[in-house]
Amino acid sequence: MTVHFKQVTIVGVGLIGGSLGMILKQQGLADQVVGVGRTIENLELAIKIGAIDRHVQDPQLVMPGTDLVILATPIESYSGHLKQWGRYLAEGTIVSDVGSVKGPLVEQAESLMPPGVHFVGAHPIAGKEKSGAGAATSDLYQNALCLLTPTARTNAEALGKIRHMWEVAGSNVHSIDPFLHDWILGAVSHLPHVAAFALMNALSDLQQHTKGDAELLNYSGGGLRDTTRIAASSPEMWRDIFLWNKDNLVLMIETLEKHLQRMKSYIQQNDEAGIEHEIAKARDARQRLK
Amino acid sequence: MTVHFKQVTIVGVGLIGGSLGMILKQQGLADQVVGVGRTIENLELAIKIGAIDRHVQDPQLVMPGTDLVILATPIESYSGHLKQWGRYLAEGTIVSDVGSVKGPLVEQAESLMPPGVHFVGAHPIAGKEKSGAGAATSDLYQNALCLLTPTARTNAEALGKIRHMWEVAGSNVHSIDPFLHDWILGAVSHLPHVAAFALMNALSDLQQHTKGDAELLNYSGGGLRDTTRIAASSPEMWRDIFLWNKDNLVLMIETLEKHLQRMKSYIQQNDEAGIEHEIAKARDARQRLK
Repeated sequence: MTVHFKQVTIVGVGLIGGSLGMILKQQGLADQVVGVGRTIENLELAIKIGAIDRHVQDPQLVMPGTDLVILATPIESYSGHLKQWGRYLAEGTIVSDVGSVKGPLVEQAESLMPPGVHFVGAHPIAGKEKSGAGAATSDLYQNALCLLTPTARTNAEALGKIRHMWEVAGSNVHSIDPFLHDWILGAVSHLPHVAAFALMNALSDLQQHTKGDAELLNYSGGGLRDTTRIAASSPEMWRDIFLWNKDNLVLMIETLEKHLQRMKSYIQQNDEAGIEHEIAKARDARQRLK
Repeated sequence: MTVHFKQVTIVGVGLIGGSLGMILKQQGLADQVVGVGRTIENLELAIKIGAIDRHVQDPQLVMPGTDLVILATPIESYSGHLKQWGRYLAEGTIVSDVGSVKGPLVEQAESLMPPGVHFVGAHPIAGKEKSGAGAATSDLYQNALCLLTPTARTNAEALGKIRHMWEVAGSNVHSIDPFLHDWILGAVSHLPHVAAFALMNALSDLQQHTKGDAELLNYSGGGLRDTTRIAASSPEMWRDIFLWNKDNLVLMIETLEKHLQRMKSYIQQNDEAGIEHEIAKARDARQRLK
């Protein structure tokens, strides 16, 4: 399949959007890549590193000539963006995204598409601790999983083009139901973030109850560093993810609470076999995770 | 200070004990290092890699000629060991350990010392995922923290010798009250282990409720891998640590539960500001952890 776009507009040129822009340009997938964003400094930087060709303040002006829009802003802002410039999109245009929640977001985006404009939900599972266009690299998606979330309403040709784009980026592309996506990512990504945030906040509490002037964090080894690495994440981004995946996440937090409660009871009751069984189960499961 | 031992007996020649044995021999801190353990294969391997000079089946036979004993077995076994061969120790001998819990263990060990035998509690904070003498390396303790836990009963000269030994091993040695040690390590090590075990077990539960044949762990990125790395730890070792640090740990698990409960409520109530505040607090705390 030959996939080529005349003009791709990336809304939100951060780490994720900027890296995709670099790939679109380097791989010759687009004649022109336009950036839309809130801060001029970041957009100028994006031009300098080759993530976009130019940027505009009024997305309305470029949307009629755009054949692919990538939404790479916080998921909560999707509807505001689509309401602002959706009606300027030409028939046949594809709108795709990179958001970490899919089910209700895809439903919303589909409902906001003008006639003849095709939405394709996508979630490249990649990232690093740094953010902004300055952190973008053209190998960010190499060997990373990229999940596409087609529905009964998804245009097959548009889906094929988005799949091709992510394959060219080096990703392992899989299609999955958008609501199943949210269940799975809730378990393997959102819940671990909740746990890491709660653990850091518990440590802050415990610091307050520490005798003398001992600084707890001065005594930590690699274990705590690894366990809480993802706690250094964006509050705005994760607030939105938690709320958009609310029902799954509440149930999952309760599942985690159940296991903490169980371990606590075993410890309180000096139940050696119970503790050992819980740890052995966890260890065996962890050893299956390569 | 010149510190030299005629004969060091290491009880439990695994990763920790074996690495210390290699250092004692390579640095010329001991004329002879004797190993005591349960499996001959492991002890033979320890000789081969230069962690010990020889091994014995009956520790009683070597204890009279030993001037330093290192207890490097699971903490639950300390009293059994001390009762088996403690009475054969000569006056002036030092007994030290490497255990992850100190307060009640140090009290117990001190109460089991024969007259004139000096106990010095020590906890080198080092380790890796592999275990056994085969994983031992002479640089394991380089730049690692090593906590000594003297009490009012600790012999100053014995303490100085143990400090010197760990400094020669390359550790940053600090002295700390044994009960404060347990509070601190409870927070920065034992609680993160509880959290990692509970998270893995929660994921196993959630897998059971996953539609179709999707394997949750196939969708995980680096976040889950880091967060749960320490879940692949020894059930026996951690069972003992949890029970010996029971009172601290129960309170700490409750602190973690409180923060999970709080985040869950904010999510249930769509409290955007509350969620964002909790995450920002966690992120700020995590950013202070280098």
